[in-house]
Amino acid sequence: MTDVVSTDPRTGAAVEAVAPETTTAEVAALCEAALAAAPALEAMGRERRAALLDALADALEARREEVVALADRETALGTTRLNGELTRTTYQLRLFGEVLREGSYLEATIDHAGDTPMGPRPDLRRMLVPLGPVAVFGASNFPLAFSVPGGDTASALAAGCPVLLKAHGSHAATSKLVFEVLAAAAAGFGAPEGTLGIVFGQQAGADLVAHPAVRAVGFTGSVTGGKALLRIIESRPDPVPFFGELSSLNPVVVTPAAAAERGERIGRETVASFTLGAGQFCTKPGLVFVPAGAEGDAVVAAMSEAVSGSPAQVLLNEGIAGSYGRTSAELAQLPGVRTLARGGQPDGEGGFTAVPLLLSADAVDLPAGVTEECFGPVSTVVRYEDEKQLLAALEEVPSSLTATVQRGTGETDLPGTVAQALRPLAGRILFDAYPTGVAVSWAQHHGGPWPSTNSQHTSVGTSAIRRFLRPVTWQGAPAELLPAELTDGFTGIPRRVDGVLHTPGS
Amino acid sequence: MTDVVSTDPRTGAAVEAVAPETTTAEVAALCEAALAAAPALEAMGRERRAALLDALADALEARREEVVALADRETALGTTRLNGELTRTTYQLRLFGEVLREGSYLEATIDHAGDTPMGPRPDLRRMLVPLGPVAVFGASNFPLAFSVPGGDTASALAAGCPVLLKAHGSHAATSKLVFEVLAAAAAGFGAPEGTLGIVFGQQAGADLVAHPAVRAVGFTGSVTGGKALLRIIESRPDPVPFFGELSSLNPVVVTPAAAAERGERIGRETVASFTLGAGQFCTKPGLVFVPAGAEGDAVVAAMSEAVSGSPAQVLLNEGIAGSYGRTSAELAQLPGVRTLARGGQPDGEGGFTAVPLLLSADAVDLPAGVTEECFGPVSTVVRYEDEKQLLAALEEVPSSLTATVQRGTGETDLPGTVAQALRPLAGRILFDAYPTGVAVSWAQHHGGPWPSTNSQHTSVGTSAIRRFLRPVTWQGAPAELLPAELTDGFTGIPRRVDGVLHTPGS
Repeated sequence: MTDVVSTDPRTGAAVEAVAPETTTAEVAALCEAALAAAPALEAMGRERRAALLDALADALEARREEVVALADRETALGTTRLNGELTRTTYQLRLFGEVLREGSYLEATIDHAGDTPMGPRPDLRRMLVPLGPVAVFGASNFPLAFSVPGGDTASALAAGCPVLLKAHGSHAATSKLVFEVLAAAAAGFGAPEGTLGIVFGQQAGADLVAHPAVRAVGFTGSVTGGKALLRIIESRPDPVPFFGELSSLNPVVVTPAAAAERGERIGRETVASFTLGAGQFCTKPGLVFVPAGAEGDAVVAAMSEAVSGSPAQVLLNEGIAGSYGRTSAELAQLPGVRTLARGGQPDGEGGFTAVPLLLSADAVDLPAGVTEECFGPVSTVVRYEDEKQLLAALEEVPSSLTATVQRGTGETDLPGTVAQALRPLAGRILFDAYPTGVAVSWAQHHGGPWPSTNSQHTSVGTSAIRRFLRPVTWQGAPAELLPAELTDGFTGIPRRVDGVLHTPGS
Repeated sequence: MTDVVSTDPRTGAAVEAVAPETTTAEVAALCEAALAAAPALEAMGRERRAALLDALADALEARREEVVALADRETALGTTRLNGELTRTTYQLRLFGEVLREGSYLEATIDHAGDTPMGPRPDLRRMLVPLGPVAVFGASNFPLAFSVPGGDTASALAAGCPVLLKAHGSHAATSKLVFEVLAAAAAGFGAPEGTLGIVFGQQAGADLVAHPAVRAVGFTGSVTGGKALLRIIESRPDPVPFFGELSSLNPVVVTPAAAAERGERIGRETVASFTLGAGQFCTKPGLVFVPAGAEGDAVVAAMSEAVSGSPAQVLLNEGIAGSYGRTSAELAQLPGVRTLARGGQPDGEGGFTAVPLLLSADAVDLPAGVTEECFGPVSTVVRYEDEKQLLAALEEVPSSLTATVQRGTGETDLPGTVAQALRPLAGRILFDAYPTGVAVSWAQHHGGPWPSTNSQHTSVGTSAIRRFLRPVTWQGAPAELLPAELTDGFTGIPRRVDGVLHTPGS
């Protein structure tokens, strides 16, 4: 039996065996337990599930120091960032509690029986119900907020779905610790056994996705990894929904007015954004369109200076480090691509290190390979002569989670044209800001057309819950057999009745 | 060049050449025109698009007689049914106009900048935007309501997406006529050129799905057809959303109390439901669980009598007729399956005819093949001895669009248990009603787990519009560059502002 091992990315050394790889039979037992838990988890209702999410947040908070220390040892992301990530994670759990209490997410809709131009209509009542057990594959780069206790888990539990976690090999010990904290809190709260389960190892992840009890899959990772899971799903007799957040280049356009007004600052802050967390953000700005000429030169000079002054960074694991070395070298060697600056070399040996890198190309005849995502602290400046060159180059850019416009104060003409060109390519359009840092809120969207995701839903923010729900309509049902939220007298949540939306007060 | 030919299913004779198969180059030109039309169609805004839908409904109504006559000649569905279908179709177009005017479908959400436990939050504003050109593959069995002018077209146009129609070979002439009516009305209204396009022939359909300009596909048809399109989509560099309504068995459970109370009526009406439209409904009840014993016998006797008295029926096309002959014969020959009754034989030669058929099996050791869908006027009675046998048999039933419980007056215990068992298997749960006939309304859901659909969305009812939209969040955007519905002063639609849902009056 092979063990899943926890490694220290700062030294590259294996530190401890975390758990044996979960066997196919063990995966099946966990899936069956999750399936058995599903009706009881749904039957807890909105208020109790909200309280469960609060209890999970409390439990995680109570173990903050230990969790952050272990996550830092496994990821080298630093305790400041990881403390912030833990705060974000508990906030996220509690926010889904608010979503449950508010109740709009059910999309409760009642059409009473009546006559229509089509003839008589029966009594129809629709709301969303949980899909059943959800498999969650966390991301390497957010060991808390997009992993075991992260947004997929929070939104699936909120929806009423048991969660089967695939521990990420890059932070297996943190995954195990956090799972134990959450599982103990859930048991202590009285959640049904089987509400949470965890598996270790790549084959166990594949077994999970193939198991008939699993009704949806949440995944944050590479296009290659996502496609491998999709192939397993497509070979099921009953393909289930797959929500993959996959790859994102996150183009930034700096207008000439912005460059003239605050070029140095934009350059410096853009580098801070693309080297944040060693460039291991799905929203890392990987392609920065900067005007030709003196004003753009100031942006590029500031970027070069900032990159030259950046120390070597520690990446999450050996695979990412190897891939960064290969892919960034390939980018730098593309015809038409120039290397503008390199960061510091690593001290000593060992460790999964990366040298920050700034590249440059021209918008006219943009080299095709420049639009490949490279995970890690590299970004490419693209110089454009005029609006026409800029808009033509944007047509070559693949879809992303985000797209950013840096504009001059009060400037709207060119930013409007650029935003219009960027909108088909992105799920979030930023103005005068940086794409790293994704607020968890009601209005957030973290998603976009392929390859950034494969869905029309978000993995961050309150509407992420929609992924793990499906509509059911009850026709002519006796009141006793309806969910409470669909009975006539219920007034606790927003509902649409006979076509009119009513809020609890109205 | 091959022509697409219109056939008369009552005689089996080819009547006319409708159109040449659309070439790959012509498909590409139509796709490019749709892509070019997309921004202008979106820019028309909600009010104008609602008026466009009204204009399309008016135009269709004005040609009612001609459309119904041609559709009847091509489908043999009869003018009563087709007049009703046209009424449904125009109602559906106008209802999506109401959806646009009401505006909830945008999911408009504003989070103003502010402090949170996670730190400062930027100004975030989210709403849904159109996906872009949508390819629509209509169904054979609803030449209007699920074809050229049907629900997919209405919801995609409402969303602001140009529509590229694949004419169904089974009613190509009707498709062409209706397309011409709609296209002329759209042009007369001033909709952008390229708002509607149509292609003929199977290869043209494949070309459509593969074209980069197509951003989503709506499909109603067989699992085999749906999987073929999915394979094309998966081989695109950018797989796009596919919404397939595929296959549905629509189980019905008659409780002993219902059988005792009104067994004869349930039997008679169930046969009327499964022979309606020659059994060519996606919601046809294909599996009817009836209690063993005298009360159940009364249900079965009434069903047998009704089937024996049913004349032969004309199916839509040669493929469906051939498949019905083969598949119903296979069902009848399964071990454990008995033939209870046959309808009348067809008069004379020619025509795509079907003999109605009633089969029977036992719930204990339910033959696996009995749960295969067979399109056409056949249904299988499954006799159960007790609740345990019934519930065990229901576990063998694949997911469907609908599931029905016929219960005794005031009976809730067994119906509650059965509905709980049926809910994971269906998108609509009916009580004391028949699944054929799907009302178009706010609370309708026409969808379900695989194989009934591949999505968590509906193809009937107002929320069908969600399929052709995706969220976009604007971060820190100047008011001038926001959609009107996301600006602070806008009050015309329901919106969520800083977590609180507001309706226009509140």
